[in-house]
Amino acid sequence: MSLLKGFDGRDPARIGQELHRFAAELFPICRSITGNGIRQTLAIIGRRIPLKILEVPTGTPVFDWSVPKEWNIQDAYIKAPNGRRVIDFQASNLHVLNYSTPVHATMPLSELKPHLHTIPEHPDWIPYRTSYYKEDWGFCLSHREMLSLQDGDYEVCIDSTLENGHLTYGECYLPGRSNEEVMISCHACHPSLANDNLSGLTVATFLADSLCRCDLRYSYRFLFIPGTIGAITWLARNQEMIRHIRHGLVLTCIGDKGRFHYKKSRQGDAEIDRVAAHVLKHDGDSHEILEFSPYGYDERQYCSPGFNLAVGCLMRSVWGSFPEYHTSADNLAFIQPERLADSLRVCSAIVDVLEGNQRYRNLNPCCEPQLGRRNLYRPVNADAIGEEIHARLWVLNLSDGENALLDIAERSGIPFSVIREAAQLLCQSGLLSVIQDNVWIGNGRGVASKEHKVKQS
Amino acid sequence: MSLLKGFDGRDPARIGQELHRFAAELFPICRSITGNGIRQTLAIIGRRIPLKILEVPTGTPVFDWSVPKEWNIQDAYIKAPNGRRVIDFQASNLHVLNYSTPVHATMPLSELKPHLHTIPEHPDWIPYRTSYYKEDWGFCLSHREMLSLQDGDYEVCIDSTLENGHLTYGECYLPGRSNEEVMISCHACHPSLANDNLSGLTVATFLADSLCRCDLRYSYRFLFIPGTIGAITWLARNQEMIRHIRHGLVLTCIGDKGRFHYKKSRQGDAEIDRVAAHVLKHDGDSHEILEFSPYGYDERQYCSPGFNLAVGCLMRSVWGSFPEYHTSADNLAFIQPERLADSLRVCSAIVDVLEGNQRYRNLNPCCEPQLGRRNLYRPVNADAIGEEIHARLWVLNLSDGENALLDIAERSGIPFSVIREAAQLLCQSGLLSVIQDNVWIGNGRGVASKEHKVKQS
Amino acid sequence: MSLLKGFDGRDPARIGQELHRFAAELFPICRSITGNGIRQTLAIIGRRIPLKILEVPTGTPVFDWSVPKEWNIQDAYIKAPNGRRVIDFQASNLHVLNYSTPVHATMPLSELKPHLHTIPEHPDWIPYRTSYYKEDWGFCLSHREMLSLQDGDYEVCIDSTLENGHLTYGECYLPGRSNEEVMISCHACHPSLANDNLSGLTVATFLADSLCRCDLRYSYRFLFIPGTIGAITWLARNQEMIRHIRHGLVLTCIGDKGRFHYKKSRQGDAEIDRVAAHVLKHDGDSHEILEFSPYGYDERQYCSPGFNLAVGCLMRSVWGSFPEYHTSADNLAFIQPERLADSLRVCSAIVDVLEGNQRYRNLNPCCEPQLGRRNLYRPVNADAIGEEIHARLWVLNLSDGENALLDIAERSGIPFSVIREAAQLLCQSGLLSVIQDNVWIGNGRGVASKEHKVKQS
Repeated sequence: MSLLKGFDGRDPARIGQELHRFAAELFPICRSITGNGIRQTLAIIGRRIPLKILEVPTGTPVFDWSVPKEWNIQDAYIKAPNGRRVIDFQASNLHVLNYSTPVHATMPLSELKPHLHTIPEHPDWIPYRTSYYKEDWGFCLSHREMLSLQDGDYEVCIDSTLENGHLTYGECYLPGRSNEEVMISCHACHPSLANDNLSGLTVATFLADSLCRCDLRYSYRFLFIPGTIGAITWLARNQEMIRHIRHGLVLTCIGDKGRFHYKKSRQGDAEIDRVAAHVLKHDGDSHEILEFSPYGYDERQYCSPGFNLAVGCLMRSVWGSFPEYHTSADNLAFIQPERLADSLRVCSAIVDVLEGNQRYRNLNPCCEPQLGRRNLYRPVNADAIGEEIHARLWVLNLSDGENALLDIAERSGIPFSVIREAAQLLCQSGLLSVIQDNVWIGNGRGVASKEHKVKQS
Repeated sequence: MSLLKGFDGRDPARIGQELHRFAAELFPICRSITGNGIRQTLAIIGRRIPLKILEVPTGTPVFDWSVPKEWNIQDAYIKAPNGRRVIDFQASNLHVLNYSTPVHATMPLSELKPHLHTIPEHPDWIPYRTSYYKEDWGFCLSHREMLSLQDGDYEVCIDSTLENGHLTYGECYLPGRSNEEVMISCHACHPSLANDNLSGLTVATFLADSLCRCDLRYSYRFLFIPGTIGAITWLARNQEMIRHIRHGLVLTCIGDKGRFHYKKSRQGDAEIDRVAAHVLKHDGDSHEILEFSPYGYDERQYCSPGFNLAVGCLMRSVWGSFPEYHTSADNLAFIQPERLADSLRVCSAIVDVLEGNQRYRNLNPCCEPQLGRRNLYRPVNADAIGEEIHARLWVLNLSDGENALLDIAERSGIPFSVIREAAQLLCQSGLLSVIQDNVWIGNGRGVASKEHKVKQS
Repeated sequence: MSLLKGFDGRDPARIGQELHRFAAELFPICRSITGNGIRQTLAIIGRRIPLKILEVPTGTPVFDWSVPKEWNIQDAYIKAPNGRRVIDFQASNLHVLNYSTPVHATMPLSELKPHLHTIPEHPDWIPYRTSYYKEDWGFCLSHREMLSLQDGDYEVCIDSTLENGHLTYGECYLPGRSNEEVMISCHACHPSLANDNLSGLTVATFLADSLCRCDLRYSYRFLFIPGTIGAITWLARNQEMIRHIRHGLVLTCIGDKGRFHYKKSRQGDAEIDRVAAHVLKHDGDSHEILEFSPYGYDERQYCSPGFNLAVGCLMRSVWGSFPEYHTSADNLAFIQPERLADSLRVCSAIVDVLEGNQRYRNLNPCCEPQLGRRNLYRPVNADAIGEEIHARLWVLNLSDGENALLDIAERSGIPFSVIREAAQLLCQSGLLSVIQDNVWIGNGRGVASKEHKVKQS
C-alpha cells in the first residue's frame, strides 16, 4: 500500500480545490465546544467517511473537569440609537463572544463598552473571543466600527441558550490488521475560522477517506472533537482503549502558506517524531521541528503524564504566531488549495512510513548475496551505482532483526519510499523476509514476534 | 527557604563592603600549610560562624603522605653591606620563601643570588614561592630590587622554626534535615594574597553565616584547610563520613573582575555540575563551563578515583591564567567588593537549587487539571500566557515522579526559581505533592522514598 | 614495544623509496581474481614475510557464491587491416577486459566496436574494466586510439583460458601473546594499477615485516586476497576463526597525495574506529572520518550482518572519487614514496595504540600519591607543569579499572603515546599496575580478567 503513490497519481490542483470546497462548505457554521454547530459540522463530515457521533451529557465528570452546559445561538445584534443593526451576528458569527449568555437590554454606550472586544493593531479585523468557563456576554467587532459608535442608548440582544444538554464529538474508526492504533485528532469547535481549524478537519476527512480504501496494518482512529474539553472527555471515556494508541498526530493550522512545523511528542523520540521528521526532511521544502512543550492544542492532554502518548502536532504556521490567528482575517482566502493538498500529501507520506516501518531479516546474512545473478546489481563495467542499488545494499546490511526500515532510511540518508521498495524487491527475490509485528491482533490476543517469509506487494 | 531572596532583599554594595573588610582583616597574616598564621585566621573566622578547629600531629600518615613539620616564622631580612634592611619580612610576608628553614649568615651576593626569586616579566612584583616538601630557604623580591643589589657581603636572617607540631584546619558543620551533605571547601594556606584565596575564605564564611539561620534540607560542611595536604588529611581522617557527601564545591579566586568559570566534577554530569551550569546560565553574565581535569585545587583530591566525589570548582579568573596570580599584585585592590558580593550571590543561588531540587508528583496526572477555576490560569480572552503560567504547565506535565525541578527547569528553559515557585503554588492548590527524599536522616537510619502531601512555604 | 618509535628512528625518505620500489616490482604483473598473476604476486610478497598460499578449487560453494573458473592470459592484440598491432596486451595489461574469454577472429570495425571500452572525458587514458561473472570479451583503449581506427577488417586475438582451476590467496599469521586477532586485509586482484591497490599490498607487507620482529599482545593476520570473492571465500572457510578477530583494517588507495580518510566499521564506535580517529587527529594533517556504508571494498563482507566485525577501511583519496581511479593514470607516478611511508607510519601508530590500549589500576586511588618524593613532579616553584606530568595525573585519576589508556588519551586530549609513557613510568614507580586482558590465550582456554603488578618496559 502506498497512499503517496495514490496521491501522486492524481491531479494535485484538483485535490486542492476539493479540499478547499469542503472547507468552504463548513465555513459559515457557528461552531462552539457544544451545540448544534458542531453537530451540523459532524453531519457533513459523516457524508464522506464512516463517522460515529457521540453525545455526552452536561455535568458528566471527566477527570478534573465536567462537561459544560450546551450553548446554542439563534441571533444577536446591537442596534444603534437610530434603530440600525450596527453589529449583526448574521453577518459574522465571530461578532458574538462565543458562549455568551442570553441578554436583551438597552444601555448607554458607556455601559456597553466593557462588553466590546476589538484589536486596535488591526482595526479592520474582528477578533474571535470565547468565555466557556465563566458566564459572560459580549460582542466582538472591528476597532474601526467601535470608534464610529456615537453616544446614545443601544439595544443589545443575544438570543442564545446555555442549558443542560450534551457535548458532541465524532469518531471515525478504520480497523486494520492489528488493533494497535494511529490516532488523528483535530479540534472542531471554532466558528468561521479557516486555518484554525477547518484546515485540520478537511485534511483529516480526506485522509480518512483515502484510508477507507486500503488494506491497513494499523487501525486508525480519527477524532473530530471540541478543543481541550473534547480531548479530556474522550480520554476519560476511553481509558481502556488508550493502550492501543501507538502513534498519534494532532492536525491544526495546515492550510496557510507557511512552512511546516512539527512539534514533537513529550517522549521526544517516539516513532511518530522520527517519522514526521524524516518525511519533512525529504519533502524538500523548508520546515522546522519543534520540541515538545505543554502548551498548544490537544497534544497537551494526550501528552499529560498519566498518558504520555506518542502524539505530535503537525502545523504549517504555528498557532498564535501569525497576526490573522483568531481573527476574521483567518478566512477562506487565508487557506490555499495547493497548501491543503500539500498537507494531505505530507500526511499520506507519514501514514505510508508508519504502515511500512517493519523489520526484515536478511536470509543470507554472511557476506553479501550475489545480486548480479539475480539482476539486482549494476550492469557490467558501470562505475557508479544508483540510489536504488545503494538502498538494496543498505537493507541487506542492516536487516539483522534490529533495524526497522526507518532506521535504515535514517542511517543511509535515503528516502523511506526508496528503502521500502528495495525491501519489497529483495523479499520477492527470496533474500529477505519480513519480521511479523509484535502487536495486538484484531481478536485482542497478544501475539509474540514471529517470522514468516512473506512476499510483499 | 530562598537564600537568593534574602540576598536580594539587602543592599549588595553594603554586602560587598562587608566581604572586602573581612578579607582586609585577614590579609596581613602570614599563613602557611601549618603554623600560627592559619590558627589566627581560623580564630577570626570562628568569631563569625561556629567553627571547630582541629589539630593533627606532625608525622601522622595520611594515605600516601604524612603530616609535615609545623612551620612558624618571627622575622626575616636581608641586610645590605651598609647595614640597611633591603628585604624585610615585616613589609611583606611574601618576601620569604614559604616554609624556609632558619638561617642566619653573612655571604657575598654571588652566594646569596641562588636563594633569590623574582619575576623578570613583572619587575615590580614580588613572587609567592613555597618549598613545603624539600627543605630549603630563600627570599622573594621584585626584579627591580634584585637588580639594584650591589656586590658585597649580605647578612641574611630567617628567624623561623620547622619542628614537630600540628597541621591545623577548621570545620563548620551545619546540620540539616538529612545527614546527606553539601561540602564547601577552600584553602586557607596562602599568606598575603587576596584573590587566592581570601576571596574563597570570605565568601564561604558569609555563606555559612547565612545558612546558620535557615531550615536546611541538606547538612552543610565548610572546610577551611591548607591546600593539598589539608584535603588529604581531612579525607584520611573522615573516611566513614565521605559517603554522606552528595554535592561539593571548591571556592577559589572568586573576588577579581573576571567572569565566572565552573570546572565540572570528574563525574561530569553530577547534580552539582548541572546546578552550577543552570545558575550561571540564568545569571545573565558571560561565563564558561570547564571540563574536569586532574590538575587544579583540592577537587584533585576529592575527585581522586578512590572517592570520585561530586565536587566542582567555582572560580572567576582561573588560577594561573592571570598575571597577578601568586604575586604581590594579588592584593586587596585586586579583589572588588561588588565581585565578592556577586560571587556570594551565585553561591546562594546554587545552594537554593540544591535545596529545592526535589521531585514532585502531579496528583491529577490524566489530562491537565482545570487551572482556571483555581485562578491559576490566564484571565479570559488574553492571548498570551506569562512565564509563571508556562512554569505551572511544565511542572504539572513533567512531575511524573521521574523529573526533579532542575530537570524541568532545564527542559523548559525557565529559571529554577520560577519553576520552584510554580511547584510551591501547585502544592498549595492541592495539585502537586512533594516526593520525600530517599536520603539518610539525622538519626543515621536509611529511609526509603515516601510521598507526603506537604504544603511548602 | 613501539612500532612508531622504530619507524621514527629510521630515514622516512629511504623507507618511502623501499616501499615504492616494491610496488614497482609488482606493477607489471597481470593480476586478476584468480590465476597466475596473483600467484606470482604472492610469491614475491612471500620473499619478505612468512606467507601461506592457499588454493580453493573452482566451484567450491562459498555462502551465496561459488569460486569461479580460473583465468589466465598469454597475449592479446588487435591487428589493423594493414597487419600492425594497434592494441597490444604486451604494452599494457589494462588493454584486455579482465576475465575475457578467448577469441581469435577477424571482423569489421563496426562489429568490433561494441567490444571496445574508452573514457571520452580522459581521451589519453586506458580504462580498467572487468567481467568476472558474465562471460564476455573486450578491449580497453584510449579514446584517442579508438577515434583513429579506420574502417576495415581487424584481427582480434585474446589468448586466454577460463577453465576449472583455483582461487589463490595469501595469509600471513603472526602469533601474539593472545589469540585474539587484528586482521589487515587488502585486495591483490588488480593488474597494473598502483594506488588501487599496490599501495595497500606494499604497506601491508612492510607492516607485517615490522611486526615479525616484535613481541605482540595480539596475533596479526594479513590477508592478500582477490576483492569480494576472496573475502567471501576466506570468511566461508574460516568461520570458526572469525570470533578471534577483535579489530580489523582494510587498506586501499594509500599511496597518492590525498589526505587520509578512515571509513568506520558498521559498529561505528568500535575500538578500531576510535583508535584510527585518535591517530589521525594527532597526526597533525587534515583528514576525514567517514561513516560506514555498505558499499566500498572488502569491509562490505566483513561488516555484513552475519559477522559485523570491527573492521574499518583506511584510505587516502577515496576510491572512485579521483579521476585516475581504475585507469592507466593510476600508475607508479601517481603513488609517491613519501606518501607510502607516511601511510606505513599511520598504520604503525594504529597498531601501537591497539597493542598498548590496556586498562591499569591506580594502586593509591585515595587522593593523589606524592609524586614529588618520587621525582615524578615538577621542580620546586615552577609554575607550569608539562604535558608529561599532566599525563601522569590523568593516568592516575582515571585508572580506576574502567578506563583504558585510549579513554584517558581521548578525555585528556593528550596523544596516546604520551599517555602510554606515563603509564609505564607509573608502573615502574609502583603506583600503577596493568589489568590483564580478558582474552583468549594461545592454548585456547579462556582466562578471566586478572590483575598483576607488572613492570612495563
